[in-house]
Amino acid sequence: MKQKAIQDYYPDELNHCYGCGQLNEHGLQIKSFWDGEEAIAIFHPKPYHTAFPGYVYGGLIASIIDCHSIGTAAAAAYQEQGREMGSNPALRFVTASLHVEYVSPTPIGLPLEVHGRVEEVKGRKVLVHTTVSVNGEVCAKAQVLAVKMPEHLKPNREST
Amino acid sequence: MKQKAIQDYYPDELNHCYGCGQLNEHGLQIKSFWDGEEAIAIFHPKPYHTAFPGYVYGGLIASIIDCHSIGTAAAAAYQEQGREMGSNPALRFVTASLHVEYVSPTPIGLPLEVHGRVEEVKGRKVLVHTTVSVNGEVCAKAQVLAVKMPEHLKPNREST
Repeated sequence: MKQKAIQDYYPDELNHCYGCGQLNEHGLQIKSFWDGEEAIAIFHPKPYHTAFPGYVYGGLIASIIDCHSIGTAAAAAYQEQGREMGSNPALRFVTASLHVEYVSPTPIGLPLEVHGRVEEVKGRKVLVHTTVSVNGEVCAKAQVLAVKMPEHLKPNREST
Repeated sequence: MKQKAIQDYYPDELNHCYGCGQLNEHGLQIKSFWDGEEAIAIFHPKPYHTAFPGYVYGGLIASIIDCHSIGTAAAAAYQEQGREMGSNPALRFVTASLHVEYVSPTPIGLPLEVHGRVEEVKGRKVLVHTTVSVNGEVCAKAQVLAVKMPEHLKPNREST
């Protein structure tokens, strides 16, 4: 059986993110997989996702890091609570801050390998460390502060 | 006469960025305008640029900040050298780091107003402070460390 991505467990009404929403047909549809310790994603940039000829656009890298880190926070939170991924109430996070260091220009045409790990949990906040590599070489590293989505931001299930 | 955007002055061979390249037909084509003290951009997210219903995707905000800040650094560098924007040799920057704080969820459906200012110049490095607002309310603020593009990354004009 094929493993489901973390984003496949997001509830439908919260699964329209441009970066990772499985219901956003225009989006990047990033898929992150949880192995019990970290989340891993493989992303294939399109030829037009360039910064300048030969290299991947940094905003795309930031987007992948954002969604992947948020997914990492969700998977880790389910695990910490001893709950099945996707069980209700949904554990969904939003980004409080995103700090990306571009270590070296990221060559285009090869898959990006993305690894996310939880560094620290403080109440509603989860600090995630994420790297983006090509051929095993780290091109970007990041810290993302994820915060549990406030209830007032969640769409009303009845109305969606 | 209509004012040209900072990105309109980028040389063709460095104008394919997915975020702001005027020659990238698939891209966001962000346009930043320099007023002598700061750079300003207005960006209209598409309806599918959502994080979750009603709000703008954080990765898009990071992308806009990235390109706008790099443009700010370029415009400020030309001005500091007393040179016409776009004159040769081209002053083009790349992103060393990007730090975005999402102050409040950004409502979708309204124009994003982006302001970038140079905070500090240190040799090849320019620190830019950028904000993204909707209806005058700051939704995100950022610090971007821009670095002059190394010569070896510039495409050979002869071969493009």
